[in-house]
Amino acid sequence: MPNINEKMMALGKCRSVIRDIFEYGNARAKEIGRENVFDFSLGNPSVPAPNEVDEAIAELNEGFGSVALHGYTSAVGDEGVRAAVAENINERFAAGVDKNDIYMTCGAAASLTITLNALVNDGDEVVAIAPYFPEYRVFAEAAGARFVSVPADTEAFQIDFDSFEAALSSNTKAVIINTPNNPTGAVLSEYTIRRLCSVLRDKSEEYGSPIYLISDEPYRELVYDENIVPPYLINEYDRTIVCYSFSKSLSLPGERIGYIVVSGRMDKSEHDDIYAAVCGAGRALGFVCAPSMMQRVVSRCLGKTADVAIYKKNRDLLYDALTEYGFECVHPDGAFYLFMKSPEEDATSFCEKAKKHELLLVPSDSFGCVGYVRISYCVSTEMIERSLPAFKALAQEYFG
Amino acid sequence: MPNINEKMMALGKCRSVIRDIFEYGNARAKEIGRENVFDFSLGNPSVPAPNEVDEAIAELNEGFGSVALHGYTSAVGDEGVRAAVAENINERFAAGVDKNDIYMTCGAAASLTITLNALVNDGDEVVAIAPYFPEYRVFAEAAGARFVSVPADTEAFQIDFDSFEAALSSNTKAVIINTPNNPTGAVLSEYTIRRLCSVLRDKSEEYGSPIYLISDEPYRELVYDENIVPPYLINEYDRTIVCYSFSKSLSLPGERIGYIVVSGRMDKSEHDDIYAAVCGAGRALGFVCAPSMMQRVVSRCLGKTADVAIYKKNRDLLYDALTEYGFECVHPDGAFYLFMKSPEEDATSFCEKAKKHELLLVPSDSFGCVGYVRISYCVSTEMIERSLPAFKALAQEYFG
Repeated sequence: MPNINEKMMALGKCRSVIRDIFEYGNARAKEIGRENVFDFSLGNPSVPAPNEVDEAIAELNEGFGSVALHGYTSAVGDEGVRAAVAENINERFAAGVDKNDIYMTCGAAASLTITLNALVNDGDEVVAIAPYFPEYRVFAEAAGARFVSVPADTEAFQIDFDSFEAALSSNTKAVIINTPNNPTGAVLSEYTIRRLCSVLRDKSEEYGSPIYLISDEPYRELVYDENIVPPYLINEYDRTIVCYSFSKSLSLPGERIGYIVVSGRMDKSEHDDIYAAVCGAGRALGFVCAPSMMQRVVSRCLGKTADVAIYKKNRDLLYDALTEYGFECVHPDGAFYLFMKSPEEDATSFCEKAKKHELLLVPSDSFGCVGYVRISYCVSTEMIERSLPAFKALAQEYFG
Repeated sequence: MPNINEKMMALGKCRSVIRDIFEYGNARAKEIGRENVFDFSLGNPSVPAPNEVDEAIAELNEGFGSVALHGYTSAVGDEGVRAAVAENINERFAAGVDKNDIYMTCGAAASLTITLNALVNDGDEVVAIAPYFPEYRVFAEAAGARFVSVPADTEAFQIDFDSFEAALSSNTKAVIINTPNNPTGAVLSEYTIRRLCSVLRDKSEEYGSPIYLISDEPYRELVYDENIVPPYLINEYDRTIVCYSFSKSLSLPGERIGYIVVSGRMDKSEHDDIYAAVCGAGRALGFVCAPSMMQRVVSRCLGKTADVAIYKKNRDLLYDALTEYGFECVHPDGAFYLFMKSPEEDATSFCEKAKKHELLLVPSDSFGCVGYVRISYCVSTEMIERSLPAFKALAQEYFG
């Protein structure tokens, strides 16, 4: 065996469970036809990008000039793009964000790896609240951190603060939150967020070392009730770093475009050091700049979203049907995931039984919370409709 | 001071010398007008992308379907794109590359960081031959390697094999070569490459541990003499990993699109392990997939290049003028850089004097080779023409 990096080899060989199921779905589709596979595995938006995206691409391609459009931007992102992003954030959240707080990235994963590599020293701990996106562990460990998982609050899918406080220590460098949440669709309430921030302030002081709050929010705009607006974390906690992606809001996941905001509400020198470390980490990891044309595209589409009404319709259709069949589901206020209790203890075994009905669901184990499955409803409404008899048959195996 | 990652902070604060000069140029342009600054600092292609790129973008934007076009591809890249890339390589070099040897990346820097993170264990050494692209050191060290620089062959800018052999050890995990070379424009001869590969084979056997050859070749298509075709390394050395980028060939540096080829001529299990480690490293560093639309764009433009004749014209104009003024230059056969001997020992001091003539040149120190400057001639021919009196005046300060 060649003496290469075994950790990386293992990560490559043990693909994420989600990707594995997705690849199985592709193979299965070749065997029995795409229309006969009900693939609920991947968070790949099913709603087209808004027309403004197509229009922006066409206009830039025709009129911007090839050399300027496709040339390198500054490593931190085009200045005009950063100014537009900051302005849009401030219009919506009055957060006082400056263009020089913004660092454009190749999407949410890049936002997270860059932020973690900027903050973490070997031995530091990074805390996430279950259930969480499984790649958090991969990203945190690759940055040299120990990953600490806070057990889920399976009552309300908010935060179990006893467990949360127990997970913090003087080694805690950062806490990652994700609201609306993947995989539950739950939105953290104002009460939860205020209490979380209060704990972080207290603990930072107690330990004499700052705990940063990393707010991973690709689903911010995907909320299905006008009355729910997830608080903007920069307004709640000074040591916040927002990791954003346009993947879900503009249905551009393959294009890899997002940004980091290093809150300007920290001490200036602390802010500047962290922003510099973000630049350094982006450089060391090999990101040069965020894709130049897409930087301009998103800056022309700020405030637009893909048609979220379709996801809401999917949610209602699926949630109503599955609960009617006897399944127990978390009611999702946002994102495009339904978190359903496995009717048997072992969610993986349940997913295997679902597979026999050509239903591809993701067991919750890798999200740090056993006994559930994640069902991505960013699929065609018509596929959901066609899949319902399969879900019904699956329910009958358990509930008769 | 916050206890964040100091290495990353230092990397962010000490920008690359090249980026620093580039930013100085932008600031200076605001003061005295863009037309009065002769910025030769950055390798940002000045020739527009070929028309086929614009056409491919327009066609994909209109006819491919938003969800498919902008959705995630497989982490390794779209299968059809990889097949097209492999076919194009095989047509040109008969290298027997398979689509499953290819991993699509976000450009050359990503190709390198992913490859290095896949191969390197702490304590391994990565060797590069001076003068080299300065970020090699950053990428290698961030991957946990010790970076070893082989002193330049300042006669022919090939390889000084005594120095090269002395730099190898049982800790050598990989050697990076770059031909055509940044910063010299030199192309490694067939003789040099055969001898290099022979040394690597011998040393791998002697140490009982394989040394990988990383061929960083963003400038492959930028060669100004039809008789010069840089050998395809996969045909020369079985343990080759090619890191490619379309940045220069298609003038798309801001779009971040390239690929890795893990040669299939290694033992199958060794190949598969390394390919898996590449996948794992891509995942751990936060690259999800290469930008999805650009994957399709480049696959439709394989074999096309930006108009290289313009660079050739620039090279001839600049080389002829500078040598006439008394400067000593390496004659560049490829890429778009001229490597000029500093007329005083300290190249940085020379660059400061050049700045007074508004000439922005890059001192060679960070390329691992003192006493030269890099002049990027991927600029408008007209700017070169306007800059010549400044070069002449600069020459007169030294040569009278």
